Amino acid sequence: MPDVIPDDSVGLVTVQEHHFTEPLTLRSGRVLPEYTLVYETYGTLNAERSNAVLICHALSGDHHAAGYHRMSDKKPGWWDNAFGPGKPIDTNRFFVVSLNNLGGCAGSTGPLSANPETGKQYGPDFPILAVRDWVNSQARLADALGVDTWAAIVGGSLGGMQVLRWSIQFPERLRNAVVIASAPKLSAQNIAFNEVARQAIAKDPDFHEGRYADHDTIPKAGLMQARMLGHLTYLSDDAMRQKFGRELREGKLNYSFAPEFQVESYLHYQGEKFSTRFDANTYMLMTKALDYFDPAADYNGDLVECLGNTQCEFLVLSFTTDWRFAPDRSEEIVRALIEADKPVSYACIESDSGHDAFLLPIPRYHQMISAYMNRVADAVENGGEA
Amino acid sequence: MPDVIPDDSVGLVTVQEHHFTEPLTLRSGRVLPEYTLVYETYGTLNAERSNAVLICHALSGDHHAAGYHRMSDKKPGWWDNAFGPGKPIDTNRFFVVSLNNLGGCAGSTGPLSANPETGKQYGPDFPILAVRDWVNSQARLADALGVDTWAAIVGGSLGGMQVLRWSIQFPERLRNAVVIASAPKLSAQNIAFNEVARQAIAKDPDFHEGRYADHDTIPKAGLMQARMLGHLTYLSDDAMRQKFGRELREGKLNYSFAPEFQVESYLHYQGEKFSTRFDANTYMLMTKALDYFDPAADYNGDLVECLGNTQCEFLVLSFTTDWRFAPDRSEEIVRALIEADKPVSYACIESDSGHDAFLLPIPRYHQMISAYMNRVADAVENGGEA
Repeated sequence: MPDVIPDDSVGLVTVQEHHFTEPLTLRSGRVLPEYTLVYETYGTLNAERSNAVLICHALSGDHHAAGYHRMSDKKPGWWDNAFGPGKPIDTNRFFVVSLNNLGGCAGSTGPLSANPETGKQYGPDFPILAVRDWVNSQARLADALGVDTWAAIVGGSLGGMQVLRWSIQFPERLRNAVVIASAPKLSAQNIAFNEVARQAIAKDPDFHEGRYADHDTIPKAGLMQARMLGHLTYLSDDAMRQKFGRELREGKLNYSFAPEFQVESYLHYQGEKFSTRFDANTYMLMTKALDYFDPAADYNGDLVECLGNTQCEFLVLSFTTDWRFAPDRSEEIVRALIEADKPVSYACIESDSGHDAFLLPIPRYHQMISAYMNRVADAVENGGEA
Repeated sequence: MPDVIPDDSVGLVTVQEHHFTEPLTLRSGRVLPEYTLVYETYGTLNAERSNAVLICHALSGDHHAAGYHRMSDKKPGWWDNAFGPGKPIDTNRFFVVSLNNLGGCAGSTGPLSANPETGKQYGPDFPILAVRDWVNSQARLADALGVDTWAAIVGGSLGGMQVLRWSIQFPERLRNAVVIASAPKLSAQNIAFNEVARQAIAKDPDFHEGRYADHDTIPKAGLMQARMLGHLTYLSDDAMRQKFGRELREGKLNYSFAPEFQVESYLHYQGEKFSTRFDANTYMLMTKALDYFDPAADYNGDLVECLGNTQCEFLVLSFTTDWRFAPDRSEEIVRALIEADKPVSYACIESDSGHDAFLLPIPRYHQMISAYMNRVADAVENGGEA
């Protein structure tokens, strides 16, 4: 609990929202007649409106990336270590926008919202989204905020896919793309992990084909199962070895099916916590958006051509022990950018922490972001644009 | 279907069984008052009883390793490519024994058997077993077959752990240990995968805490889920890429939660098939035995000391893309054997097939086994012992 809010925190933040009444046609062909996006901002938009940075969140993230909502909050936002005064993305210099994506469960329009056409909760009838739908809705938020061009868009994992999609879809609307621990598309293995997680939810009898609200229940066991699996794949084998090894909860084997090893209790705890805070239909949607992402598909699978129209500079970062989105996958992006003759910086950061590393304050990682973003801020301040 | 049984097949085989009436005290302290083991044999035991080879099966295997039960069988046993006349383990030279382990669901005493003390099915009351319990029961089967000393014991994955345990527990009863795609103990990540699979079964409402037989049902969804996850981890990312890529079942995205990618349908099919043939309580048991295996724990974690009393020669094999039991884990065994001054041969076989490689007829892999086992057979035939 922040008895005193740290100096390098963005401090107390207020959730804002914008309601959009212009219908949004989605990749699937379906149309969202109207929708709301909730968001937070940190720092101050300059007079030229040239210092705005957008954060795109990953599977289980939301708009609350930094700071505190109340003095009684136990924890700050999910990426607080990277955003704040003097932090890698310095809110003394940037105006940062962080939103909850469409289909989310933290306030933006999603499965938990009322369908304006029926007055009832969308639930499983909420349309399945593609990453480009998020980017389209984010572009409208930029319009609403008066941001023509982002100084940078930043995201890790599924967030990095949104950054990539921005660079392709609105090449003139961002000057820098920071793509972290991401991939140009999921592999069959990635899709398989998502499908196993979705099945865990879908087969939970409390799921009721997504209409659990009508039955006044939630598919807790399925969500817990999905999260345990997800969490496991975000950690590296090394990280788990260091964190848990084969330590036993009670110091001895019990020859029972209750959790005996520390790693089992840890996953149960993580799964349990998640299952009460996250909406199952949103989880299903988000993993589908991951599966579908494949921007090169519109260019006969040619990623070089796909990235050919981008106009921004790229910083691509990966982590040595990330096996869910391995360095190889980031390097596919980097190679394509080089071949397309685009400006790109790349680093593969040494880390034991697997995919989770992108959320951790690893010194070398933060130094890379700081150095890059400080140059972006210098350009903004010197030229009026980055 | 083998209209004609191939020349290099062990041919039609008959399942045999042995009933043991001497109680078996288990690692957990519990006692099995009596039990049956089912097994098959291929080849002929020589007069000196010195050419016997034991196969130890992995998680989902059983006694039917090679040949056919009926002319109408569509497929031979699960490791048919390695056992037969002229095959890597040549049944013209060896007498091979393959059993279903205790706790299994293919005929040996396990959760599906009647508890002699109650007359009712054991179900979840069947004791949780350790690898050493299997080895003890296998040693009694050897006694029953008149085999004092195995020319070799061979196993992959969990089977390899049984081979290791044999070498430690009955050092004078085997001359060669072939340990394939195995590990001296599970990592935290391995345990975590097992726990997620067990949770999938345990949380299936049809599981009824293991008493599904009383409810005339099986936890099909949970088993399917567990198998999908297991199967996914047995394949390498590369293998899945080659096999499925991002191919769509219907050539286009449907924006629905039904399986859309080929890899999803494949996993559904594998999970479905497994869920109707395998017993859930057995699955729970087998994964626990994997988790518990850690022979060095009796030696303060010192694997060198643990292997110090072994008297056999070792062949250790691993596969480049196996990430469930990575080459590193086999190399831990090899390094400990070298440090303990034991005779060991090791190869890491190039393969795209992940953990599954140990069941595939990869030429270099089969050459390694052939060369090793032919030397074993030569020694048997020349000296009366290997």
